[in-house]
Amino acid sequence: MKSSQYLETLVLKLTRLPGIGPKSASRIAFHVLGMPAEEVESLARAMLDLKRHIRACAVCGGIAEADICPICADGSRDRGLICVVESAKDIITIEATGAHQGVYHVLGGLISPLDGIGPDDLAVSSLVTRCSDAAVGEVILALNPSVEGDATAMYIARLLHPFNVTVSRIAHGLPVGADLEFADSATIIKSIQGRVKL
Amino acid sequence: MKSSQYLETLVLKLTRLPGIGPKSASRIAFHVLGMPAEEVESLARAMLDLKRHIRACAVCGGIAEADICPICADGSRDRGLICVVESAKDIITIEATGAHQGVYHVLGGLISPLDGIGPDDLAVSSLVTRCSDAAVGEVILALNPSVEGDATAMYIARLLHPFNVTVSRIAHGLPVGADLEFADSATIIKSIQGRVKL
Repeated sequence: MKSSQYLETLVLKLTRLPGIGPKSASRIAFHVLGMPAEEVESLARAMLDLKRHIRACAVCGGIAEADICPICADGSRDRGLICVVESAKDIITIEATGAHQGVYHVLGGLISPLDGIGPDDLAVSSLVTRCSDAAVGEVILALNPSVEGDATAMYIARLLHPFNVTVSRIAHGLPVGADLEFADSATIIKSIQGRVKL
Repeated sequence: MKSSQYLETLVLKLTRLPGIGPKSASRIAFHVLGMPAEEVESLARAMLDLKRHIRACAVCGGIAEADICPICADGSRDRGLICVVESAKDIITIEATGAHQGVYHVLGGLISPLDGIGPDDLAVSSLVTRCSDAAVGEVILALNPSVEGDATAMYIARLLHPFNVTVSRIAHGLPVGADLEFADSATIIKSIQGRVKL
């Protein structure tokens, strides 16, 4: 194929991004070719800026532009309620709902022996340190309902047992609007196990 | 949502790319955040390089790093056989098959009165100029089987009528491996109209 090395380089780099295959990469590369030069520069700058100016919050591990993220720095948030998530992305998802008034703790992954990820690879000890503060009353584990999520939740619950902290996990069951008829059996089992008294 | 302006800026810019919605954009932005700094820089540079170093070939309108694209500069290609395509991207698709030994001509669009695109908005007059050269024997219209593709093909065929040039169009019919049972009626009609004597 007689193409351009510049085109092939960009397509190759784009396919390394999540959810982008060779066809989408080529489509995006040709789109970039047709974009005004200033727009391409501003897209490239936005990527570099993100990488340069964003760091992990020293307290929770969430995304921050300073040492501490805006949530940890916000005095109106309940520091006694820590929501534990797998990645910083989950914070944005939960924040968008407005359902959590406390603070967060990013683990940076889930325990997965098959992938060689143990508790030492996650931000678990810093969570324990945070929980040793008497002000912390509850830790909500907002982890995915997967084998890894279950294992990590069990591990953390056991680890925090000596502290005077309630450890809870977000409910797993039928999503709102879903039909029982079309739900998978694993979800139905979870929804029966987690039934709530009325 | 308390997030970072840098993150929001990148997500917004990414959603402007084709095939990328808000969820993919956010996924890619977080992936960029986790990439080594050199990799982000090289991705940003690849975008800028593409835009800076690639221009339209002065002859065919395809992608070129110099004035003339490698295909037009290649003496072994048949200059008497011009394949007319909608965009430069189509050249790469056709080149990957190795089925065309001639050269190309990029229209830069298709006639579409509804979108306000007329023949004057396309590289039609330069095609006529190229066809006035006695060496050109055939023009293959490799345009999509759409209303716009049909209209553009008819227009060009009529325009090239005065010249001593055969104007053909790529066949439209059942794709190889497809099952007649599942083909749409428009494709079946095309395949019957374009039947080939054995």
